Amino acid sequence: MNTMNDIEVIINNKRYTICGYESAEYLQKVASYINNKHTEFKLKDFYNKLDQDMRNILLEINIADDYYKAKRQVKELEDDHEAKSKEIFDLKHELISTQTRIESLQKELQALKFDHVEAQKKIVKLETEIDERGLRK
Amino acid sequence: MNTMNDIEVIINNKRYTICGYESAEYLQKVASYINNKHTEFKLKDFYNKLDQDMRNILLEINIADDYYKAKRQVKELEDDHEAKSKEIFDLKHELISTQTRIESLQKELQALKFDHVEAQKKIVKLETEIDERGLRK
Repeated sequence: MNTMNDIEVIINNKRYTICGYESAEYLQKVASYINNKHTEFKLKDFYNKLDQDMRNILLEINIADDYYKAKRQVKELEDDHEAKSKEIFDLKHELISTQTRIESLQKELQALKFDHVEAQKKIVKLETEIDERGLRK
Repeated sequence: MNTMNDIEVIINNKRYTICGYESAEYLQKVASYINNKHTEFKLKDFYNKLDQDMRNILLEINIADDYYKAKRQVKELEDDHEAKSKEIFDLKHELISTQTRIESLQKELQALKFDHVEAQKKIVKLETEIDERGLRK
């Protein structure tokens, strides 16, 4: 889109040559959008009774209204985007702390397992000692 | 916005009465947006050389271009919104499984602690038994 193009479009049944950086495809899409507006308006009695100047103004306002509606949608989505990013940040943070908690529990468990095995060895040793000395009836 | 209002706006130095459901405030904002477009265009030599019809078309295309840019932004934000929602879902799912893992580790640890206390009691009992019978040298 860096070179200027002369693009021919038909708007409201008139041929215009538009010189701009936009692609022909894009400009045709825009032209067809504007033509749909003309078609919509022409279906309304009041519009057909208006002079050309007033028709142009109504068309401009109508297109600008579409623009403002889209802008409002952008604003709502941006706000939501911000809220979602914050939620993701908080969830990641929470996930890290639960993972740290898992690691410390695993360490604690491992240490206790070792002590418990040692305790059981000691029990066997003491029981053997008692048995060897024939203390058991 | 359920009642029709007659709102007076000034666009390109002309007074128009617009009848619509929009609020006066909103319509004034739209009018001032369109007036800014006129002002921008009037600064360009080529525009001042054009006939009124061509000026109107350029203005319509320019406003429609703002609309399409905003629409593109909406599309991008909607795609991002979807990706973020999926990430949040996955993070919540991962968080639940790590929390479940913590609970099971805590249960395992508690049971082992109980067994270990029992083992230590038994050690004390056995050592006492040996001591009482004067087996220790």
